Amino acid sequence: MLEQLKNEVLAANLELKKNGLVLFTWGNVSAIDRASGLIVIKPSGVSYEEMKPQDMVVVDMYGKVVEGTLRPSSDTPTHAALYRAFPQLGGIVHTHSTFATAFAQACRAIPAYGTTHADYFYGDIPCTRSLTGEEMADYEANTGKVIAETVKREDVLAVPACLAANHGVFAWGKTAAEAVYHATVVEEVAKMAYLTEGLSREARKLPQHIADKHYFRKHGKDAYYGQPSSPDGDKK
Amino acid sequence: MLEQLKNEVLAANLELKKNGLVLFTWGNVSAIDRASGLIVIKPSGVSYEEMKPQDMVVVDMYGKVVEGTLRPSSDTPTHAALYRAFPQLGGIVHTHSTFATAFAQACRAIPAYGTTHADYFYGDIPCTRSLTGEEMADYEANTGKVIAETVKREDVLAVPACLAANHGVFAWGKTAAEAVYHATVVEEVAKMAYLTEGLSREARKLPQHIADKHYFRKHGKDAYYGQPSSPDGDKK
Amino acid sequence: MLEQLKNEVLAANLELKKNGLVLFTWGNVSAIDRASGLIVIKPSGVSYEEMKPQDMVVVDMYGKVVEGTLRPSSDTPTHAALYRAFPQLGGIVHTHSTFATAFAQACRAIPAYGTTHADYFYGDIPCTRSLTGEEMADYEANTGKVIAETVKREDVLAVPACLAANHGVFAWGKTAAEAVYHATVVEEVAKMAYLTEGLSREARKLPQHIADKHYFRKHGKDAYYGQPSSPDGDKK
Amino acid sequence: MLEQLKNEVLAANLELKKNGLVLFTWGNVSAIDRASGLIVIKPSGVSYEEMKPQDMVVVDMYGKVVEGTLRPSSDTPTHAALYRAFPQLGGIVHTHSTFATAFAQACRAIPAYGTTHADYFYGDIPCTRSLTGEEMADYEANTGKVIAETVKREDVLAVPACLAANHGVFAWGKTAAEAVYHATVVEEVAKMAYLTEGLSREARKLPQHIADKHYFRKHGKDAYYGQPSSPDGDKK
Repeated sequence: MLEQLKNEVLAANLELKKNGLVLFTWGNVSAIDRASGLIVIKPSGVSYEEMKPQDMVVVDMYGKVVEGTLRPSSDTPTHAALYRAFPQLGGIVHTHSTFATAFAQACRAIPAYGTTHADYFYGDIPCTRSLTGEEMADYEANTGKVIAETVKREDVLAVPACLAANHGVFAWGKTAAEAVYHATVVEEVAKMAYLTEGLSREARKLPQHIADKHYFRKHGKDAYYGQPSSPDGDKK
Repeated sequence: MLEQLKNEVLAANLELKKNGLVLFTWGNVSAIDRASGLIVIKPSGVSYEEMKPQDMVVVDMYGKVVEGTLRPSSDTPTHAALYRAFPQLGGIVHTHSTFATAFAQACRAIPAYGTTHADYFYGDIPCTRSLTGEEMADYEANTGKVIAETVKREDVLAVPACLAANHGVFAWGKTAAEAVYHATVVEEVAKMAYLTEGLSREARKLPQHIADKHYFRKHGKDAYYGQPSSPDGDKK
Repeated sequence: MLEQLKNEVLAANLELKKNGLVLFTWGNVSAIDRASGLIVIKPSGVSYEEMKPQDMVVVDMYGKVVEGTLRPSSDTPTHAALYRAFPQLGGIVHTHSTFATAFAQACRAIPAYGTTHADYFYGDIPCTRSLTGEEMADYEANTGKVIAETVKREDVLAVPACLAANHGVFAWGKTAAEAVYHATVVEEVAKMAYLTEGLSREARKLPQHIADKHYFRKHGKDAYYGQPSSPDGDKK
Repeated sequence: MLEQLKNEVLAANLELKKNGLVLFTWGNVSAIDRASGLIVIKPSGVSYEEMKPQDMVVVDMYGKVVEGTLRPSSDTPTHAALYRAFPQLGGIVHTHSTFATAFAQACRAIPAYGTTHADYFYGDIPCTRSLTGEEMADYEANTGKVIAETVKREDVLAVPACLAANHGVFAWGKTAAEAVYHATVVEEVAKMAYLTEGLSREARKLPQHIADKHYFRKHGKDAYYGQPSSPDGDKK
């Protein structure tokens, strides 16, 4: 069932490791088959060295296991909530990458300080509010809910990531590979933003006209970056 | 004697190197066989490239050599003191990993700023007081004593690490491998905490209800992270 | 056409990746054949793993494609503007390397704090002003224009790099390889300058007599660094 | 001539590169044969990938070439001045390693904040004064002179390194290999000191009784670190 998607999800998980975004098994990638409404996700607590395509778990849009002998990632209810909230998403990634997680721990958005940021994110990468004590009861699903509260539905692919306060990064895209690409950019722009603030106490946001220029030369109908046939994610 | 444990201790020492926690020979791992009360520990000043299982030294719970032709790590009295103080421990690690050592040099605990921390440590990672001039006479044993003073016995596996002020990291677990896992997490959460403070002058501790949620979804009788059969150390 | 130069430009692009200056495809190198006035440049959005010499695109000094089936880098008009403004240049590099980009995002020059800097750059590495809303219409060409405004023509090889405000690094040299060498030094001195300011609130510029000594023992008629036959770029 | 020493000097230069202390050719190692008063040193501006033992240059204690077809490192007069000033030295290293150079650029000593430092350096790693305009005439020899001014002769092996203000690191030892070992420790303790100050505005020096304990358990007649036969440099 969904063998091609299992291969893609496994490859995306390994890419996460290769890009230096995860320590041990601290990260997970999923993808959805919108036709059937089925999600393929990494199993919980299996090392990246040992994972095989058939270890990927298939769940429905409420996180119920449909196929697979291993438990799905414990963050599955967050992924499922995001797929329900945002029909545009094809793949989702969760990481604890170092600099971006520091912003999440400081409960701060990653400010759009430069064109590297603007090439992929149209505005700041937001950070959710902290979850309340009451929300602990259904913690993972509520993590998805609070991200959906924070990200405007029409912006979900224009700002394809959100920080979960106190926690870490969720990023997404039209595919699992694109989601990993965006999670990688989040970490790099988080590092650049950290350093920018270290160099200037009054670090200013990127002027809006430059943000517009960079975002729209890579996205939308007037984009002129990359080759005509190249994927949206990697144009430079 | 204790050949299996020697293999485990050697493997754990090499893992320490592989995880980027040690420069040269600056680190050591031990494990204890509680049935016999014998400790297996890395020899002093032998390079990681050359170490063989038979180089591991066997000492008793007071650090006296029982088997082996090489000198044991000069930190052996610290390991022995910790095994005596905390019967729950099966393996102990000492490192000078960079960010965690900076906290130790600043004589500060590593604050619990996020869920990455809370997944493994139930509260701050404490830092001992500095040793006094009088305590220099039996320095290594007193380093163990002051850690035992700082860590509450009932918490020793809930907060499986302690900083030795001015010095570096001691971490532990039920096995040598788990101790290395924890030492690796200490360095990563130390780096995240350093960066969090750089981003926010009033960096706040993680709310207690979130700390509870993350710790108890991975530890104790209601844990639901990882596969049912997976080791405690690596569930995500 | 220009096969040798295509090989050099490809090799320089790969060197950029190897030196850790680019994530994904975020960087580009070009070189010019002054005899014909033709520029060889990396194609847009092609991964470094797949690039071949025949993928390099040949454009004229106004960025018009003369040979090649792929689109040239979208930054081609910036490269072309710089080749027109500065006849001394043989190769140009653009990167978003992390520390140097943080200076660009803070809209600050990289101060000459030490001899590592002075060995390659005779004074600060300047940063342009931000582009105006009006300049967005011809963004890439105007990026070249504003760099030409900032760098004095007679200094262009004495300070072989400039930060584009809010954006990133442009570096150059007499060849593509030398341009990559300079881009690599920019990132290293940017990191050193960042750390220097962290250590001293009143970090002072390098005394002028030391800057002179270091620059002129490596450059110009009285240089005595390196072997008599060695290239100018790498003498130490 | 001195073939064994040439092999050692080449190996030490390669170790410098492997330990991440040098970019391109920015570093050099020498060793002295005290019997003949001859120094073996790296040639200037030859890449580490290409260097062979026979490329090493032999000079006398005033830097005059005795054997070799390549120019010696342009820092040769500094090495020679140090060998003349300190008869205890057998090997010398010069680097621009990142964190240590930031201290040099800030014209600051590296404070002894912890036991990692105290294991190898008995007190702060000092920084010279800046050279004057008059001293530019014989720049490299005066760099050696000002280091000799800064380091007390009786302490030269107890604090086996000194920062050259505005410039970088000089480190030494009884052999070239030991000098490289010390240069590697300088960079690590510089990084730890930088981070320690980031964590505590009133970062305090290590108490003297702990500094004494750590230094003297590894050095001198009562040392008990390492194996009885192990070299002095690497005991832990």
